[in-house]
Amino acid sequence: MHIAILTFDGYNELDSLIALGVLNRAGLRASIASPAPRVRSMNGVTIDATTTLAEACKADAVIIGSGISTREVVEDASIMEALRGLDPDRRLLAAQCSGTLVLAALGLLADVPACTDLTTKPWVVAAGTKVLNQPFFARGNIATAGGCLASTYLATWIIARLSGLEAAEEAMRYVAPVGEKEEYVARALGNVTPYLEPALR
Amino acid sequence: MHIAILTFDGYNELDSLIALGVLNRAGLRASIASPAPRVRSMNGVTIDATTTLAEACKADAVIIGSGISTREVVEDASIMEALRGLDPDRRLLAAQCSGTLVLAALGLLADVPACTDLTTKPWVVAAGTKVLNQPFFARGNIATAGGCLASTYLATWIIARLSGLEAAEEAMRYVAPVGEKEEYVARALGNVTPYLEPALR
Repeated sequence: MHIAILTFDGYNELDSLIALGVLNRAGLRASIASPAPRVRSMNGVTIDATTTLAEACKADAVIIGSGISTREVVEDASIMEALRGLDPDRRLLAAQCSGTLVLAALGLLADVPACTDLTTKPWVVAAGTKVLNQPFFARGNIATAGGCLASTYLATWIIARLSGLEAAEEAMRYVAPVGEKEEYVARALGNVTPYLEPALR
Repeated sequence: MHIAILTFDGYNELDSLIALGVLNRAGLRASIASPAPRVRSMNGVTIDATTTLAEACKADAVIIGSGISTREVVEDASIMEALRGLDPDRRLLAAQCSGTLVLAALGLLADVPACTDLTTKPWVVAAGTKVLNQPFFARGNIATAGGCLASTYLATWIIARLSGLEAAEEAMRYVAPVGEKEEYVARALGNVTPYLEPALR
């Protein structure tokens, strides 16, 4: 299984790397997919991409990360062209915070309400998507989350869908604070399970 | 204000980069301090260091990150020599998960109980430190946290100490999931404020 995390210049470290850590904990290979070999975060952290946008379009699941330049990303014809292959019938698609704007720009949220952060919300609304006042929502193969730390819910959803609910619980239990593990697991599952197919709940 | 986050090869992304994101949200400059110009995480994410261990020893606060190679770090004489300048009388010192082993190896936890993750716990105990079954503990200028996501508590403590409790609340509110912001702020403050001086609570 391969999960690609789309990460652009100006990326938010929390939004790309929390999910990466939790997914890897579940034994799912999560990679950083970028338009360039190296990308620099909104706070100056430069990381190497480990895969390309073209490879990302073949992954089992794709997370669209967030950052301060997402409005430029959706205006960049070469990037958006590279992402046309993100067909949700063939993979899971998850967007974090301003990543939701990319899903909207790809026309994938026309009939699906979505979550995003409070700063991005007006732009997602302007793109014609209904924004929910909650941390996580999924319908079918498309999920969105709002607020950096809700990235744990995107990871929980992807693990539950690809490896089962027990694997998702175990990964969240591992990364949760000592002494608060059951509380964190319960909150993550509480956010995600209502949106899993009945067979997975 | 400068906060250095000590990040070694084999680092855990959550343990270095969650704190970095939250601290920067509060306007505190958080940098990645490593023994080499580039370090690779336990999951293959290579990042550029933005400062050196020598500069880290002059920072206003230092977070010792975690990873899969911390036992090698504390056996590395050149690294440990470079960290001798980490005097807690002159700065805040915070350790995340296996980072606690570095504080113990520096002799800074002889009379201070500490938090760490469940995997590192036996090693910290063997180093002569009492390990607590809780996510966060601080005494004076030294704080420790256990479990990756408890890194938000280390960040909350540093912001509270350097910029005040209101700034810490605001940063945590920003990064928390939409619809769960007050719950996340309350939990972070609930973990940290008992260990702040009365004047800061």
